[in-house]
Amino acid sequence: KRKTAPNPELLAENLMKGDKAALARAITLVESAHTDHWEIANSLIENCLKKKTDSVRVGITGVPGVGKSTFIETLGKNLTASGKRVAVLAVDPTSSKNKGSILGDKTRMDELSRDANAFIRPSPAGTSLGGVARKSRETIMLCEAAGYNVILVETVGVGQSETAVSSMVDFFLLLKLAGAGDELQGIKRGIIEMADAIVINKADGANIKNAQNAKIEFKRALQLYPPKDNGWTPKVTACSALENSGIQETWDVIDAYISLSKKDGSFREKRAAQNESWLLQTIDNHLKTDFYSDKNIQATLAQLTKEVVQSKVSPFRAAELLLQQRKNETK
Amino acid sequence: KRKTAPNPELLAENLMKGDKAALARAITLVESAHTDHWEIANSLIENCLKKKTDSVRVGITGVPGVGKSTFIETLGKNLTASGKRVAVLAVDPTSSKNKGSILGDKTRMDELSRDANAFIRPSPAGTSLGGVARKSRETIMLCEAAGYNVILVETVGVGQSETAVSSMVDFFLLLKLAGAGDELQGIKRGIIEMADAIVINKADGANIKNAQNAKIEFKRALQLYPPKDNGWTPKVTACSALENSGIQETWDVIDAYISLSKKDGSFREKRAAQNESWLLQTIDNHLKTDFYSDKNIQATLAQLTKEVVQSKVSPFRAAELLLQQRKNETK
Repeated sequence: KRKTAPNPELLAENLMKGDKAALARAITLVESAHTDHWEIANSLIENCLKKKTDSVRVGITGVPGVGKSTFIETLGKNLTASGKRVAVLAVDPTSSKNKGSILGDKTRMDELSRDANAFIRPSPAGTSLGGVARKSRETIMLCEAAGYNVILVETVGVGQSETAVSSMVDFFLLLKLAGAGDELQGIKRGIIEMADAIVINKADGANIKNAQNAKIEFKRALQLYPPKDNGWTPKVTACSALENSGIQETWDVIDAYISLSKKDGSFREKRAAQNESWLLQTIDNHLKTDFYSDKNIQATLAQLTKEVVQSKVSPFRAAELLLQQRKNETK
Repeated sequence: KRKTAPNPELLAENLMKGDKAALARAITLVESAHTDHWEIANSLIENCLKKKTDSVRVGITGVPGVGKSTFIETLGKNLTASGKRVAVLAVDPTSSKNKGSILGDKTRMDELSRDANAFIRPSPAGTSLGGVARKSRETIMLCEAAGYNVILVETVGVGQSETAVSSMVDFFLLLKLAGAGDELQGIKRGIIEMADAIVINKADGANIKNAQNAKIEFKRALQLYPPKDNGWTPKVTACSALENSGIQETWDVIDAYISLSKKDGSFREKRAAQNESWLLQTIDNHLKTDFYSDKNIQATLAQLTKEVVQSKVSPFRAAELLLQQRKNETK
């Protein structure tokens, strides 16, 4: 049985009333690969953009095992208890139904998922980061239109998804563990420099001393970095998501950042710059897809890449040859 | 008086004999903005690519005042004294004849510039990083064909040029000063993570203790980073370019890296990946230039950018509109 085509105006209306089922259906539309859903999704997004919202978007990353789910569940419950409405999303381009995605198993955030003021959405299917990133960004817009004013975007600290996530959030949090050689392993280069705060998780039991040492170590290391564009110096906290200690302090850091950046205008500036950057990135992606999906170009590219790698042709000369070929073809 | 058109075969031949005048003329051709020079330059590069070379390419960055020129002069003289042939280039997209470019004033490297086994070339004119980067990369090829086996590429640690330089060299060196709050100022985010070694310069006189402390501090900080793809852990040295102390130790670090990376194959792999990446980047640049130089697109983009920044239109929707417009125009 086919469902009738969804009505974007009606769906937007229900979604903006805070109807979770409408929100879930809207996200499914945005994530849909069916071309006949695109126009509806676009219209839906446009309707949602009209709503004024006042949200905080926080990106959260860390290697598997660092305790992201427990951290997000504890933080989320604290936030809903203080009257916030919390949406949790995931960006994980490598996830698939077979491999199991982060957040795919909702039972990982059992209590939060049953909270009336929380909405949890697993990573969208699809292996291309570009696709997942677009879907995630539009999902943020939908959640905000549905009245969620804290958006937590989870990602795993091992791929390229951090850059995508950091370009869709106001604040970027890196979760770390003390000791166990974790400092040297797993985390991708460049992520430390992206972080607005580093949180040493699992600061409980026998691990407390280690965590405090790691905190000092990271504070010292972060002093070697230049401050962010708006003058913010990344902070380091220690917490135990399990024992709900240090979580409020971590949120206070985020809160302080948001207040500061709203005061000096950098909050708005960052969002405006992010919007513009998504526009330009989307154009660039389309231009590339157009070019590289040309079968004849693919054949020539494969041949020229070999020659370029072997230093038989200059990369610039090879590029010229390819661009000339494409120009001749599309004439 | 017009010079006769240069003969690329003859020029390549003289250049490969090590003729400095031929090399300088070849570089001028590669840097030329005249379209009728492009074909000659391409042919020149192709001739030079045939020559097997065995060079080491080192990128050197650091904020103004860190002592890059003195460091390069001292290192360069040590290298020519040990039988190497050294070429020094600069990548500085912001330089212009009026503003004065790094290396523009050859007297800054007075002794090295008079060394028969050294060749110094200031930054090419032109404000676009893409243009400067291409020219610099092709200049490296020409210098190598002319028999220079150590290529030092200087850049200033304040712009985007570091990414470009790090993608054309085998080893990337960051020069720092001890104390004076330098750790917190001037250097662009992300550069520390690019460095294969950090050199604390001006470790002389009253500054020695400071420099040794800074060395320990940086070693400690770098332990928090993951190692490079080939397992290399960035090293920290201290030196005085003025007193020629610690310079040999710094070169030993580079030398150790080159030996290691040649042994495990990562030297070749990195160069191959760099070549391929330049090919793809050049294509991407051309595709973008093509699109954004369209006057009608420029007008629509300006309008849509406003709406996107104000969250009136989704960035993805705006991109679609622009791409559709371009498609209709080029039909």
